[in-house]
Amino acid sequence: MSQKPLDYTAAGVDYSKIDPLKILAQQAASSTRGNLASHGVSEIPASRGESAYVMEVGGVLIASITECLGTKALVADAVRPITGKTHYDAIAQDTIAMAVNDLITVGATPLSVHAYWSAGGSEWFADEQRMRDLVAGWQKACDVCKVSWGGGETPALAGVVEAGRIDLAASSVGIIPSRERLTLGDKMGDGDEIVLLASSGIHANGVSLARKLVERLPDGYASKLADGRLYGEALLDPTVLYVPVTEALFAAGIVPHYSANITGHGWRKIMRHGGNFTYRIHTLPDVPTVLSFIQHHAGIDDREAYGSLNMGAGFAFYVKAGQGAEVVRIAESLGVKAWLAGRVEAGTKQVVIEPLSLTYAADELHLRA
Amino acid sequence: MSQKPLDYTAAGVDYSKIDPLKILAQQAASSTRGNLASHGVSEIPASRGESAYVMEVGGVLIASITECLGTKALVADAVRPITGKTHYDAIAQDTIAMAVNDLITVGATPLSVHAYWSAGGSEWFADEQRMRDLVAGWQKACDVCKVSWGGGETPALAGVVEAGRIDLAASSVGIIPSRERLTLGDKMGDGDEIVLLASSGIHANGVSLARKLVERLPDGYASKLADGRLYGEALLDPTVLYVPVTEALFAAGIVPHYSANITGHGWRKIMRHGGNFTYRIHTLPDVPTVLSFIQHHAGIDDREAYGSLNMGAGFAFYVKAGQGAEVVRIAESLGVKAWLAGRVEAGTKQVVIEPLSLTYAADELHLRA
Repeated sequence: MSQKPLDYTAAGVDYSKIDPLKILAQQAASSTRGNLASHGVSEIPASRGESAYVMEVGGVLIASITECLGTKALVADAVRPITGKTHYDAIAQDTIAMAVNDLITVGATPLSVHAYWSAGGSEWFADEQRMRDLVAGWQKACDVCKVSWGGGETPALAGVVEAGRIDLAASSVGIIPSRERLTLGDKMGDGDEIVLLASSGIHANGVSLARKLVERLPDGYASKLADGRLYGEALLDPTVLYVPVTEALFAAGIVPHYSANITGHGWRKIMRHGGNFTYRIHTLPDVPTVLSFIQHHAGIDDREAYGSLNMGAGFAFYVKAGQGAEVVRIAESLGVKAWLAGRVEAGTKQVVIEPLSLTYAADELHLRA
Repeated sequence: MSQKPLDYTAAGVDYSKIDPLKILAQQAASSTRGNLASHGVSEIPASRGESAYVMEVGGVLIASITECLGTKALVADAVRPITGKTHYDAIAQDTIAMAVNDLITVGATPLSVHAYWSAGGSEWFADEQRMRDLVAGWQKACDVCKVSWGGGETPALAGVVEAGRIDLAASSVGIIPSRERLTLGDKMGDGDEIVLLASSGIHANGVSLARKLVERLPDGYASKLADGRLYGEALLDPTVLYVPVTEALFAAGIVPHYSANITGHGWRKIMRHGGNFTYRIHTLPDVPTVLSFIQHHAGIDDREAYGSLNMGAGFAFYVKAGQGAEVVRIAESLGVKAWLAGRVEAGTKQVVIEPLSLTYAADELHLRA
């Protein structure tokens, strides 16, 4: 391939510009924790820097989060003329997944979701088919996750959001029914097993790259994948909702030592835990056809692909030795393919992907202040 | 004035296009309430359609909400070259106010806030002064409201959010410490007193109109108001955070029969309660200079002005007869000017503003499915 490989900076997302803000914001946020004391409430300090925030209120552990879809709706907009479908039912599921799949990492049962649908103008809401698909998809995802859709906000923000576009986000509130279910990583240890749950495709991370790639494809989103599907259509396979899996694990008495939602930063997210551990992966999940296609046509190597895309692993559980096989069984009984993929070792913080002879060092993931 | 008066449709917000979506979404959302039963959780049904959603979890009443700033950040962007200030500290306060001022209407004590800062590109975050102001303002508003800043999301969404712009929102979680404090309007009755709390200016509603008006002003945002301040600067006076007032009321044993946050739809919001009541206003708050200026230069009459802007009233309490004076005293002890402004009467649903000989009929406010 004569073209230079695509990467995230080429695709317009420069984390080096965002990270200083994140650190400043995290420090300021942390300084506000003392405000809770006057209400007789306390935070669970270890939840800061984790994927959801946890407070203890009158013996009830409340988890909350706000998450963004990203730019995936732009793919739906571009693919609609090709397939004749709006795909906003899938987009709705993606948006809810961004919130609930993070919320469950701390051991929470999601209870409610709020919608944030911020359009580039009131006319966005006048497209009846798209509007119905968005509402129906949102409702269905709530039903799958057994959460109540508590409300939302549907502003029309011409001049802030691009004309004809929509900025989608979701916030979610949940509870952690008992302290024993609080999953913040304190029990993680040498010998723990790593179980990876299958993704359905790109989910909603790496989408800038996937969109940028279209400029290189003669048939754009209508390009055929190896399995005969269209690139655009496969990109829009909705993100797996992992809530039924975590609920089933808890029902079976299995409390992971840690969980990670594999989103931005791809497999580097496997070392999300704050401790010093090596994550040694011996088994790779099947790579969704659409992700192989992206890797090939973007001309990126395995290091770049696994470092930015989920490559078939949408969620990771870290469980005590001997428990991994049961986790796999439970996930697969719910239709979510899973792999006992590796183990945790005390030592240098890194992700070692043995079948690919790849290692991500600790300094390749910056998520905490 | 020779020009046609400005109104909301002229300013680009057409609620008739958004309302069908809102109704469809509210119906779908309501249908998901049954999902809570499997968790041993229930919703407070009367909170649907109110400003915040309330669930009962193990005896704890949890309120939650997600709210949007709107387009006010565009004013800050335009005024910065004139004043040399970013004004994003004020913008941060506005955004938090949108969430917490709604949350408190149901009787909640806000506990945590999540930030949603969705920028048009990573370069938005590289402006260090603006970034520091946004973070500092957010932190300060959290401290005033005694809430913990639990986390947030700072995506860069080129192609969704306009280049150089930011879509700001906040979600908040709170508790209602006792059932007696749950304020959903069931105690509202004939003879209740209406107390209005002063706004600081436009807050964050009516901003599209205020921005549109600039096209008519030779000096734009640098236009001088009657008090000598600049139009743009006065528009950016941050929204009052009413949380200290509601907390002080509860501490004094005063539980309003209902509360309304006066936002979009201006004084029509005074009849937000679902029942059949006439809201008879006998005393008008002082109108902030910037709002008089807008009314005058936009060429809109009192019906349009009070029907879309807060006109000096940022929040309304409905309290039992005889309690209004004490509410005024408590608010003013906290530096928030207040007026015992009217009374509730059983009968036709309408807002009657006696000093202006103005009446808004029930069908002029559509907020519920």
